[in-house]
Formats: sequence, structure tokens, C-alpha cells
Amino acid sequence: MPPQLTLVLGGARSGKSAYAEALLADAPEAVYLATAQPGDEEMAERIHHHQSRRGAAWTTVEEPLDLTGALALHCRAGRPLLVDCLTLWLSNVLLADGDPGAAIERLAAALPDLPGRLVMVANEVGLGIVPDNALARAFRDHAGRLNQRVAAAAQRVVFIAAGLPLMLKDHR
Amino acid sequence: MPPQLTLVLGGARSGKSAYAEALLADAPEAVYLATAQPGDEEMAERIHHHQSRRGAAWTTVEEPLDLTGALALHCRAGRPLLVDCLTLWLSNVLLADGDPGAAIERLAAALPDLPGRLVMVANEVGLGIVPDNALARAFRDHAGRLNQRVAAAAQRVVFIAAGLPLMLKDHR
Amino acid sequence: MPPQLTLVLGGARSGKSAYAEALLADAPEAVYLATAQPGDEEMAERIHHHQSRRGAAWTTVEEPLDLTGALALHCRAGRPLLVDCLTLWLSNVLLADGDPGAAIERLAAALPDLPGRLVMVANEVGLGIVPDNALARAFRDHAGRLNQRVAAAAQRVVFIAAGLPLMLKDHR
Repeated sequence: MPPQLTLVLGGARSGKSAYAEALLADAPEAVYLATAQPGDEEMAERIHHHQSRRGAAWTTVEEPLDLTGALALHCRAGRPLLVDCLTLWLSNVLLADGDPGAAIERLAAALPDLPGRLVMVANEVGLGIVPDNALARAFRDHAGRLNQRVAAAAQRVVFIAAGLPLMLKDHR
Repeated sequence: MPPQLTLVLGGARSGKSAYAEALLADAPEAVYLATAQPGDEEMAERIHHHQSRRGAAWTTVEEPLDLTGALALHCRAGRPLLVDCLTLWLSNVLLADGDPGAAIERLAAALPDLPGRLVMVANEVGLGIVPDNALARAFRDHAGRLNQRVAAAAQRVVFIAAGLPLMLKDHR
Repeated sequence: MPPQLTLVLGGARSGKSAYAEALLADAPEAVYLATAQPGDEEMAERIHHHQSRRGAAWTTVEEPLDLTGALALHCRAGRPLLVDCLTLWLSNVLLADGDPGAAIERLAAALPDLPGRLVMVANEVGLGIVPDNALARAFRDHAGRLNQRVAAAAQRVVFIAAGLPLMLKDHR
């Protein structure tokens, strides 16, 4: 039996999205929950690159802010869902003047009751030098807490570097 | 027998302090050696957060600069000690116009002779983009060397990501 | 039989160069392919530090830009070669207004046909906060792709933290 919740953690361009998609490659009705907002050119190009790789078999839904609501709506037994990515969602919450701490708690509280198979992608952002500005430091702290909370709820946590997986947790 | 020296390495908000504290949870007389200086609000809040998690069973001592001296004073057989964290100590040494290279060598030379069980927490800060300013680059280099020296002396080295441990070394 | 291609991945001052050199310590005629340019004092000092550690047994060649050409020239059966490092080479290509995407593809296409034993060192730079400036973001993306391409071609990929190895791939 595949694990109910998998967290795929990695750096920028580490291959984490491709790895996460491959975990659901056998699922005919997978849903791709995109948290990105195609606000600028860079992001629009990245979204397009990911879409063309996934192909037509996936249903794509977009939700930049109400991730917990979107999961309740789209996560169904027998229909796996991929969230790409948690870190972008957190950034959207912060930029919209939301309360990231509360949003993380709401998400963490909802995870154990979701009925379907779920793969979540997140960035590890805390392994560089301490950022100069306070907002970046706060973001980094929230991102670290978010990763810890989702990892605690997950049955499987994989760290990706250079496209290669390292298993951090595998409870099945 | 638990290892004499354990290094717990990780990113910001990776759960490394909580993991390090749990390693000494069975020790009734553990000493917490804090290297932080409660100079600003952010740091004061972080120190308070850590203190409330540890509870009253720990004795807390503070030493921002003379870490090697404090270890000689407080590290005793039968009384485990947790240093949180090495990276902040290094930063204090740099800000006080000390010689970080010499301070690292003094610490590394003292480690093998300490009589008690010792857990040291450190940040990995070298996995982001090269910093723009020379001071940050120098700090990153010193921090990397410090981690290598302590890891070489340790019997156990654990890397923490999203609250989960990855064993880098386990010589017992 | 040692693997044909090994990628040694790690952060700043993680001990990756020393680890990579030790992999070829038994090879009497090893070639060190340096991609650094001794343009500034910091870099000159780093190059000198690495040279004095390697000692006289190594032949050093320097090639900051045409890495694929230099590999074709110097990579020979029975004579192992160490490239230190890929990330600096990528940075040189970018600074010389080259096309990093095309350069990465040329390198990746050449790797499978090289006759000798090859060890390549690269930096992981994608695990910090998203950089403010677009050039640094582009560099980080290219560096991530480069690491993925070389890791896919390699038989062995090792991640180094605090001087300690973590095997990401070992196909022999």
C-alpha cells in the first residue's frame, strides 16, 4: 500500500517536482494542485515547463491561498493529489498579509483526516547564511516550522539532491 | 554506552535543538550552555521559547565568547552538557573582533579530553548561494571549518531536516 | 572496479574537495583540472591552500571556460582526473556571457564517452532563501540543473556535510 502522505523536500532545481510527479505516475486521475501565481514572467515560464512535463493525464487546479480548503475539496479516496509547492503557498500567505502561523496550524490539523493519497512538495530554505532582512528571516522560520509539521504527519519524507532521493522517514 | 560527543547539524528551524535536547532527556542533571546573547527582541524570544520547552530540570549557563573555558568549567563526568549553538558562538567571536580560526583550534584541541557526555548543536550555512559581502563569506567559511573539526572529533554526527534525523557518523 | 564517474556534492567548506582528492589518492598520475581563475586575492589563497594539500604527485591543468574541451584533451584511460569545481566553471561561463544551458548540455553529452576515471566536485547552492537578484536566481537554477545532469550520468554521487559522506547513488 502506498503511504497516505508523502513529503518531498529539496532545494531549488533539485528535481523534487519531477520526483513527486513520478510517485503518482501510475495514478490515472491525479490532481495537480498548483500554488504558484503566474504573476511574473519567470514564474509563468516555470509553470509552463512543469505543465508540459506532466502531460494531459493530470487535472490541474490552482489555489494560491486557501490550501486547506482546496485540499478538503479535491482530496478524494482513489484520486491522488500533488501539491506543488508548500513553500510558495506560505510565501503567498505572507504577501497577502495573512497569519502564516495560523495557516500552518490549520493545514497540519487537517492533514490526518484527508481521505486520499497526497504528495506534497516543499523547499528547504534554511541551509544558507542568515538573511539580512527581517522578513526573509521570518519567512525562513515559518518555512522550517511548516516542513517540520508536515513531516511529522507524513508516513514518508524524501529529501532530494541533484535529482536523487534520500529517505528521511518511511513508516508504512 | 552513549557516545561522548554528538554533533547535531541542521538548518534554521530544522528541529535540531529539540532533537539535541531529547538526546539528553534521560539525564537528570543536564547543563544547557547557551551561547546566545539576548541583545535583541528576536533573540530574546527564541531563548525564551527554548527555555520553556526544556523545563526546570536543566541548569542553564550562558557563555557567548569563552566556550572552551566554559566547557572546562562545566563539563563533568556523569553530568551531560548541551551547547546551543556553536554557530552563534562563532558569530559572537567574529563580532567581538576575536580570531575565529584560533578559537576553533582551541575548541577542537580541548574536545577529546572533556570528561562528560557532550551534545553540540550547529547550523549548516554553506548550502545557499555565495553571499555578496566578504564578511558573510568569511563567516560561512569559518562555520564550515568549525563543523568539520567538531564532526571529526565526534563519535556521532546527525543531520536534521524537517525534524528528522539522518545519521552521518555513528562510531560507538 | 572504481566507478567511471563520481560526483562529490556539498556546501561551502564542507570538505568536498578533500574527500574528492582522497578518492584518487591511490592513483599515481592523477590530473587536477582547476576551473578557478586566480583573479582576486580570496580565490588565489584558496587555490594555494588546495595545491599545498594535494602535494606534488598531481599534475595541475587550468581551464576556466572550455571544460568539455579540456576533458576530451586530458581524460585518458588509466589516468584519473579530478574537476574542481563544476559550479565555478558555470559561474565563469555566465560571467563570460556564454550560454550556460548549452554548455551544460555539451558537458552532459560528452560524459558517457570519456575513457578515464573521473571525479567531479560541485556545490549545492539551492538550499537557502530565494536570492533577491535575478542573476543569482538564474545561476542557482543553472547550478541545480547541472548537478542533476551530472548526477544522472554518474555511477556514484556523494553528498558531503561537515566532512562526512552520505551516499546518494552507488551503481557499480
